[in-house]
Amino acid sequence: MAPVHTAKKTENDQATSNLVHVDNPHLEKMKEDILYHFDIGTGTHDFPAMFGDVKFVCVGGSPSRMKAFAQYINGELALGDPNSDVANICAGTDRYAMYKVGPVLSISHGMGIPSISIMLHELIKLLYHSKCTNVTIIRIGTSGGIGLEPGSVVITSQSVDASFRPQFEQIILGKTVVRNTELDSELAREFFQCSKEINKFNTVIGNTMCTLDFYEGQARLDGAFCSYTEEEKMQYLKAAYDAGVRNIEMESSVFAAMCNISGLKAAVVCVTLLNRLEGDQISSSHEVLVDYQQRPQKLVGFFIKKHLNKA
Amino acid sequence: MAPVHTAKKTENDQATSNLVHVDNPHLEKMKEDILYHFDIGTGTHDFPAMFGDVKFVCVGGSPSRMKAFAQYINGELALGDPNSDVANICAGTDRYAMYKVGPVLSISHGMGIPSISIMLHELIKLLYHSKCTNVTIIRIGTSGGIGLEPGSVVITSQSVDASFRPQFEQIILGKTVVRNTELDSELAREFFQCSKEINKFNTVIGNTMCTLDFYEGQARLDGAFCSYTEEEKMQYLKAAYDAGVRNIEMESSVFAAMCNISGLKAAVVCVTLLNRLEGDQISSSHEVLVDYQQRPQKLVGFFIKKHLNKA
Repeated sequence: MAPVHTAKKTENDQATSNLVHVDNPHLEKMKEDILYHFDIGTGTHDFPAMFGDVKFVCVGGSPSRMKAFAQYINGELALGDPNSDVANICAGTDRYAMYKVGPVLSISHGMGIPSISIMLHELIKLLYHSKCTNVTIIRIGTSGGIGLEPGSVVITSQSVDASFRPQFEQIILGKTVVRNTELDSELAREFFQCSKEINKFNTVIGNTMCTLDFYEGQARLDGAFCSYTEEEKMQYLKAAYDAGVRNIEMESSVFAAMCNISGLKAAVVCVTLLNRLEGDQISSSHEVLVDYQQRPQKLVGFFIKKHLNKA
Repeated sequence: MAPVHTAKKTENDQATSNLVHVDNPHLEKMKEDILYHFDIGTGTHDFPAMFGDVKFVCVGGSPSRMKAFAQYINGELALGDPNSDVANICAGTDRYAMYKVGPVLSISHGMGIPSISIMLHELIKLLYHSKCTNVTIIRIGTSGGIGLEPGSVVITSQSVDASFRPQFEQIILGKTVVRNTELDSELAREFFQCSKEINKFNTVIGNTMCTLDFYEGQARLDGAFCSYTEEEKMQYLKAAYDAGVRNIEMESSVFAAMCNISGLKAAVVCVTLLNRLEGDQISSSHEVLVDYQQRPQKLVGFFIKKHLNKA
């Protein structure tokens, strides 16, 4: 009987470990948890009923893009008309926008590490209070490419900082804590495979540099301030390329770090709007940029359909 | 004649120095400047005609709050009906929202240092291209208070980091650059005087701590992760209080640093939504929070009216 018992125990362990987990002993003592920036709370909303079936969470900077993604998924999963409206669950605030379509949650996170970090704290608590299991989370975003044709999609292997190190520095009680920014390599390969099957745009797996600033922090020459030469800029970007960096954005490091701690299977899938080795300004036409921005959405939509056996 | 000549020269110098300035030699070489996150550019928009008369810029996190502020100013300056709609100049994007009412520009900046930094780079270039002079900029926001009754307004004397130092660390080409976060003390005193004249809510001048995170970065016990005890939290917040910190928010340091470089007279005026020595969750009713959030708007509206001799 021993092996069977062991097997059962492993199954239970498996079910428990597949829950989204928080790492905060204080939460258990709270009667109610108000997710202030979502304008919802456990005292006023039935989280397990609202979100218990969530299996995929897609996050991106722009609220209108995340609404469009929810509508796209609505059509792809044949759950509704892609042209019909979807309700914003966070309608009481304009900090973030959130949409739910079947097992898919689509949420905006604004720009930059602090903005996505607030959203992720509240999202992880939302998934925890809802007792969600086996959740995959994907950031779909825009980025600047390095050495890639504009419109290419980068699936992140590692998120690195401005010194090309795969880590995220967080300041807690005034002291620096370093967190790991590895992402799930199997999931990255799976996205790469999906892109091959779609076969409509160039896709690579590479490192993503995550910065705290769009202008000086990304070696742009077109900000309000610039203290370096074009040669120094190019040297820096080429050093990034040599370190395996294929694109630059502003959220992936804290996203990877926080998903690691909470046991969320995570991927970062960003399109490149320009090749930074050739310029700094994003000057493509509105139509071209809209087409580029739909590529991560199409890739993630394909992936979700495949997982739900609807591809 | 010499003294007269000198006086004239000083006047010219004065006029030049009162222009908003950029610190980037590369900008002069650009034929066109696309402010991507505002969705406007010098090639498609006549900046001096659109913005040349701007004297006051008010910035805050939430787009709907900055729209409400523009409408409020419309009524206060008797330029229009405060209930009538104002047009969003950045309607082509949902990254930021921008409204103009007479000489007042009202812009949202999202949450956190990176988000406000992108906005400020593009705003400073906008004011520079528009040849604006004598511009005063005010951040009106929300914050967590330390040792203050909720609803109190804090006018920032210095923005300090998580170690209580009046500085902002910026990473450029992978190297750390330290920038000064002093704010205009005369302007702060003027706001304090205005608050006395209004005499409707508690106002103090104090230091503001600017953090990169809302939960762990501000010693909250209610995030998804928490590795410290309640005693350690209280110790940290009390040390902040002893260092002169009266409130905590997420944008003031880079705001002060960038305004210093570009010669913008700057102030930070934030209301406190709770007293962090008594809790972490923002649990006041919607009505109470709306009333609190209007206090910085009223104070800044009063200040602008006074300057335009309409008080």
